[in-house]
Amino acid sequence: MLGQCLDNVRKKAPIVHNITNYVTVNDVANILLACGGSPIMSDEAEDVEEITSLCRGLNINIGTLHKTSIEGMYRAGRKANELGHPVLLDPVGAGASSFRTGTALGLMRDLKLTAIRGNVSEIRTLAQGTGTTKGVDADAADAVTEENLSDAVKLVKAFAESSGSIIAVTGAIDLVSDGETCYAIRNGRPEMGRITGTGCQLSGMMTAYLTANPDCPLEAAAAAVCAMGLAGEIGWSRMQEGDGNATYRNRIIDAVYNMTGNDLEKGARYELR
Amino acid sequence: MLGQCLDNVRKKAPIVHNITNYVTVNDVANILLACGGSPIMSDEAEDVEEITSLCRGLNINIGTLHKTSIEGMYRAGRKANELGHPVLLDPVGAGASSFRTGTALGLMRDLKLTAIRGNVSEIRTLAQGTGTTKGVDADAADAVTEENLSDAVKLVKAFAESSGSIIAVTGAIDLVSDGETCYAIRNGRPEMGRITGTGCQLSGMMTAYLTANPDCPLEAAAAAVCAMGLAGEIGWSRMQEGDGNATYRNRIIDAVYNMTGNDLEKGARYELR
Amino acid sequence: MLGQCLDNVRKKAPIVHNITNYVTVNDVANILLACGGSPIMSDEAEDVEEITSLCRGLNINIGTLHKTSIEGMYRAGRKANELGHPVLLDPVGAGASSFRTGTALGLMRDLKLTAIRGNVSEIRTLAQGTGTTKGVDADAADAVTEENLSDAVKLVKAFAESSGSIIAVTGAIDLVSDGETCYAIRNGRPEMGRITGTGCQLSGMMTAYLTANPDCPLEAAAAAVCAMGLAGEIGWSRMQEGDGNATYRNRIIDAVYNMTGNDLEKGARYELR
Repeated sequence: MLGQCLDNVRKKAPIVHNITNYVTVNDVANILLACGGSPIMSDEAEDVEEITSLCRGLNINIGTLHKTSIEGMYRAGRKANELGHPVLLDPVGAGASSFRTGTALGLMRDLKLTAIRGNVSEIRTLAQGTGTTKGVDADAADAVTEENLSDAVKLVKAFAESSGSIIAVTGAIDLVSDGETCYAIRNGRPEMGRITGTGCQLSGMMTAYLTANPDCPLEAAAAAVCAMGLAGEIGWSRMQEGDGNATYRNRIIDAVYNMTGNDLEKGARYELR
Repeated sequence: MLGQCLDNVRKKAPIVHNITNYVTVNDVANILLACGGSPIMSDEAEDVEEITSLCRGLNINIGTLHKTSIEGMYRAGRKANELGHPVLLDPVGAGASSFRTGTALGLMRDLKLTAIRGNVSEIRTLAQGTGTTKGVDADAADAVTEENLSDAVKLVKAFAESSGSIIAVTGAIDLVSDGETCYAIRNGRPEMGRITGTGCQLSGMMTAYLTANPDCPLEAAAAAVCAMGLAGEIGWSRMQEGDGNATYRNRIIDAVYNMTGNDLEKGARYELR
Repeated sequence: MLGQCLDNVRKKAPIVHNITNYVTVNDVANILLACGGSPIMSDEAEDVEEITSLCRGLNINIGTLHKTSIEGMYRAGRKANELGHPVLLDPVGAGASSFRTGTALGLMRDLKLTAIRGNVSEIRTLAQGTGTTKGVDADAADAVTEENLSDAVKLVKAFAESSGSIIAVTGAIDLVSDGETCYAIRNGRPEMGRITGTGCQLSGMMTAYLTANPDCPLEAAAAAVCAMGLAGEIGWSRMQEGDGNATYRNRIIDAVYNMTGNDLEKGARYELR
């Protein structure tokens, strides 16, 4: 099932419109190409409606949010909604500033979001409508662990239900829910946190999976999370003496490039809660 | 001849001013350093005239075009024209939106462009003054193939003549013409399309070649195209089991770094039409 | 001593706020993660005060300066000053345009800067209040050599004293001074100049070192310079046939990732002047 989601990305080669931050944008473009999608970037308000009309899905990421780019997010989002395209929000730093929290909450109110993907602190902020995030990385106190897993699953399910979006919380254990079912995913490596933008990359890739699998968005989102984690495992297995986070970054994208649906099917490690 | 063009880049180390998109800008800077040039980036209208005056060539790329950066493109372009510097336009996404098409056509009208480098859909759009591009990648229906090569050569020659610019269309077969002669170049690998920004990188590098070879702009542009394709071939030959597009990206820039004029002379595969 | 500075970065994992250019921002983020810090990027005036309040240090880099981002630099700088955070300025291209020179001088006047790190042309410009820089790379005529070392040390000491900031001039020989003592550092490789952004990366990393070592800023700044140069040496030693500047970039960040305090202590090559 999850492997089929990847196969569909490779078969359909969905064009994904990205309004994303300038820190990790190159990696987002390359991982989209690696998984079989095709990226376009445009954030100018005058440009986004036509661009998103050429695409099949939209990825909105507020990692380096500017006042001047917010209008483009709304215009692209509304047009994508009108066209029935999947829209994903990555609320980078929600909870870290009122500007980011407010923008993320505003986009949630105004747009039909197919999925929201963030770390646990960001997702808690949006679920509660207020924030305690200590930066763009998840707060250690918020982390999903084996001990608090049941509570975390409840939170994610409840937020998915109230928001009407698939919620994907990524961390040591990843949770993906549509309000009814929750995937608890254990792929990945802790060293992925030492690379900038693995979350942004996943959001880009998840948008491609959602776009190529319109009939099973929950499975598509979970498949993307498993694929990213599995790529982290495969990439790590290829690391050599002296390699560090720069090489690891490349190895992960390389692993996405070479991954087949069958590899994903076999390598995905998850349970349904 | 083409090898000499590369030797001149290494000898003169031309400083190239780039007004380019934030997706691929880092790779553009590194490939300019790899080929022997020296990059500067500046797109602020207040800054560009002084910056371009310190440089010897200008590369304008509209890949993530903002309303606020257009004035900088015009100011830098006019100053570069005044100083007799080569100016290259990479019309990324021309045809994909009226904003991009209109900006590219406006820059063509207002500036003396030494060269325009794009994929076939972008170039067709500018040649016709209207667009059918389906994104930032070339439309499959537009692709230059052995079957339609003669027609494509005609189009490129005619557009070079009417525009007064060297026209470089890159794809499976690359065409570079000044209106009289047309290079049909067969270097490169299809996998280069799975890396973001190989076109942007070529535009940056081509500007360095044009700048270091003012007396033979057609040969300089063709040499840059051959060098990029040859780097793609050399980079591919160094790929190992498990490598993907992230590693390939690095291998291509590495190959540009190590390429000599002699390597290029021997490796260039082209015919004159 | 210098090794202890690195150990402190790894122990404290300082969150560093970066307002930096879009050319090298991804590498800055990855080297901050490699050395043990944690990066956040935000340049929107409405966002920066809250973001910098969550951080422990601030890195301001004017490499692709926009009129619209200057206000964010001032607001973040003032807030960081208020909170007692270290603030570093990287005056990229000071001397190359009046816009850049003026902005750098304005930031110096208005903010308490813990450190200023640049190439010799940029630092000369700020010391003199006027510029002769020929781009973003140092002017060959300005280079610090064994012959003019004594004069260069004098200039750097005098500027450190008059400005009240630690001054770090990087090049073939690096100089770091607080006005009394001057480290003359001989780590590094000339090939580092063929990679875009090694200076920007050092500025990000230096901010982490300053932040984690508030009691010995001079040693912290010198340790960061030695660490960058040593990483350049280690990275170079791992280069293989066919590798070039793209691979070298990764190798340097990898070397930072794997460096221990003990490695730095043993590998640092400097004298006090």
